[in-house]
Amino acid sequence: MKTLMKNCDILASGASGFYVLKNAFCGIDNDRICCLSETEPSEKFDYVKDMGGKVLFPGLINTHCHAAMTLLRGIGSDLPLQEWLFDHMFPTEDKLRPEDVKAGSQLAIMEMLSTGTVSFSDMYYFCEDTAEAVLESGIKANLCRAISAFDPNEAYEDSYRVKEALKLYHAYHNAGNGRLKIDLSLHAEYTCLEHIVKAHSAKCKDLDAIMHIHLSETKSEHDNCVEKYGKTPAEWFRDLGAFDSPALAAHCVWCTDSDLEILKAYNVAPIHNPTSNMKLGSGFAPIQKMNAMGLTVGLGTDGAASNNNLNLIEEMHLASIIHNGYSNDPTIMKPAEVLKMATTNGAKIQGRTDCGGIALGNKADIIALNFDAPHMLPAFDPLTMLCYSAQGSDVAMTMVDGKVLYENGEFLTIDKEKVYADVRQSLKHLYS
Amino acid sequence: MKTLMKNCDILASGASGFYVLKNAFCGIDNDRICCLSETEPSEKFDYVKDMGGKVLFPGLINTHCHAAMTLLRGIGSDLPLQEWLFDHMFPTEDKLRPEDVKAGSQLAIMEMLSTGTVSFSDMYYFCEDTAEAVLESGIKANLCRAISAFDPNEAYEDSYRVKEALKLYHAYHNAGNGRLKIDLSLHAEYTCLEHIVKAHSAKCKDLDAIMHIHLSETKSEHDNCVEKYGKTPAEWFRDLGAFDSPALAAHCVWCTDSDLEILKAYNVAPIHNPTSNMKLGSGFAPIQKMNAMGLTVGLGTDGAASNNNLNLIEEMHLASIIHNGYSNDPTIMKPAEVLKMATTNGAKIQGRTDCGGIALGNKADIIALNFDAPHMLPAFDPLTMLCYSAQGSDVAMTMVDGKVLYENGEFLTIDKEKVYADVRQSLKHLYS
Repeated sequence: MKTLMKNCDILASGASGFYVLKNAFCGIDNDRICCLSETEPSEKFDYVKDMGGKVLFPGLINTHCHAAMTLLRGIGSDLPLQEWLFDHMFPTEDKLRPEDVKAGSQLAIMEMLSTGTVSFSDMYYFCEDTAEAVLESGIKANLCRAISAFDPNEAYEDSYRVKEALKLYHAYHNAGNGRLKIDLSLHAEYTCLEHIVKAHSAKCKDLDAIMHIHLSETKSEHDNCVEKYGKTPAEWFRDLGAFDSPALAAHCVWCTDSDLEILKAYNVAPIHNPTSNMKLGSGFAPIQKMNAMGLTVGLGTDGAASNNNLNLIEEMHLASIIHNGYSNDPTIMKPAEVLKMATTNGAKIQGRTDCGGIALGNKADIIALNFDAPHMLPAFDPLTMLCYSAQGSDVAMTMVDGKVLYENGEFLTIDKEKVYADVRQSLKHLYS
Repeated sequence: MKTLMKNCDILASGASGFYVLKNAFCGIDNDRICCLSETEPSEKFDYVKDMGGKVLFPGLINTHCHAAMTLLRGIGSDLPLQEWLFDHMFPTEDKLRPEDVKAGSQLAIMEMLSTGTVSFSDMYYFCEDTAEAVLESGIKANLCRAISAFDPNEAYEDSYRVKEALKLYHAYHNAGNGRLKIDLSLHAEYTCLEHIVKAHSAKCKDLDAIMHIHLSETKSEHDNCVEKYGKTPAEWFRDLGAFDSPALAAHCVWCTDSDLEILKAYNVAPIHNPTSNMKLGSGFAPIQKMNAMGLTVGLGTDGAASNNNLNLIEEMHLASIIHNGYSNDPTIMKPAEVLKMATTNGAKIQGRTDCGGIALGNKADIIALNFDAPHMLPAFDPLTMLCYSAQGSDVAMTMVDGKVLYENGEFLTIDKEKVYADVRQSLKHLYS
């Protein structure tokens, strides 16, 4: 099946960055981009899709999420962090059943598809249920079962979390024609023990897998680690081998300059979660410094409990402006840099070599934005519009591997009413 | 004409703040709210409007805007402030004709209505054209002609800006059955001269008008004033009489503690513009301190050139989270506080005594939000949802003085296609 999208501007990706094709054509051969041109191609297509003047952007990649936490959206907002965690998050999560995780993940995927996300990196548990939601929906994801450990006497092999993580890996890695990948995960320094980190890091290297962790999200987490081990969390993880595999580290708000050197040396990607860092009062991650050092910074939403959305267009907006405000400098975060975090870098962080940009031969992970709205006029530069003016609701179409999954408010692979009904069942179970 | 809205939750306003009516009824007698109840009223209504489960909130009030700057949206983004101002803003503004200001204002009003704003305080020039756009559209506004002064030899009476400001006041104040009000304005300390500030402040007092200024937006503006006059901008304005009338002061990012005491003593309302302050790198206004002191803080978008939207739901979101991030404390900005800034306080700042909340006898300035979307589930608390999850596009209906001006994507008083055509004509004039 060959489809030609016409009557659209296209933000394409080249070796030297993004460039714009005006009133252009984008051809798709099954799941890959086969034609990009400002002149009508002569080759034959099975289907011509008139995009009505919309603007095509590369699909967005959310590199830190806890999808099923949509079920905890808005719970305990505005409370101190410890109270929020221990009185609201943990007791509710304790009640989660596999079917809840499935419903919550489906709801998350709906929100992500409708706001332009084509792939997400997710850390949670009952991951088989999220995996099924991913496979059914057509979205891409890198899932991982978070390992935490509190019993110093429990051997690595005996941890049920470890068993689940490895079972997940062997059952689902590269499923769905590679759409679904399984990463390994260590939840965080403050929720892990050394012997488990060491063994799981070695396992990750063995499997040639990617390691997904939380790192230096809050000042107290960072400072407590230094007090406890005489090392920063980044030093602690490095010394235990966690960075011997390609890794992504969510937050990195309180990483020191020498921590950033470690991330650089070990090819660890920091994931920026601006809304979560603001809402929870975590602070400002040193993103400009990371970018200047050439780190591969990704962009994430974190879970809906601490965001309270899964909308990468909102994250791009925040990433574009809050660092200006914090540094008193309007020039430091450029739209191209921010979109790169949410696309090119995201694909790299997920270990996907043929995704993350609109380029010949790449997988067709494409979103179309509607610019026909009062807040999108004038629109001299699509990148400026995307980062400073666009809203998630401007996404009119989301395509993954050449397949349209969302268009004009409709989900083509998800039964919206069924998901809503399932979510309401889960909410009844969790909160009554 | 009496209308009853049914099948909706309502965020109503009482003496002690906001409260929720579940599955309730809101009756409107012409332009005023005549009934609020959780049980069906027995009195007769001419028309019953089924709200389909939507949630009614008080209409939002944008207390600092430059509406016509929609025509400059996205221009020169990411440049240093002086370069942005002198190479892009001022030269483009120099070309503005009255018809451009009309088209730009209409576009702004469309964006504001579609994202829940029912009233705005605007500082610009060619204000008659904005006034006509306001009167035609049905929205509310407090407009003012910004006074700047650079010639020390020019007398107050001879300033064409002053003449325009006073002509505007006498022609339009309280037009449209009080929907339109005219304020006076001094642009800012760094764009004014003492004799003009003194005379215009006296005139404002004579007229019993409201004074709208910019105050301590950037560090350099604040510091330069101290260097030049030995006074902060707040002290300078106070000493020249600008605060002898009720006043609103946009930004106040760099106000000192003693400046805040001045604002408090003189009943000056600081207007918080979080997106603009972030994007332009101005910094973090001390909003918690202002609220704790009992100042009447308002919320604004600033112009679309420095935002780049006119979407108060986005501003509420930012106001809710950025101060947490800056203070490393998740508890400091509560949704009720933020909505109060955008409603109750806004009405007070505009000198409107019967607006700013859903309460019996108030003008019916009401918006309805659609909660039937993946990002709005679960929704335990409407205030939490409004500040942390809602998007401008969730606004399904905007009503001003009991009249529906926007509903389900349609503008009932504005010819959208004509405005787009006029805006395109203006853009051709400005940028070709």
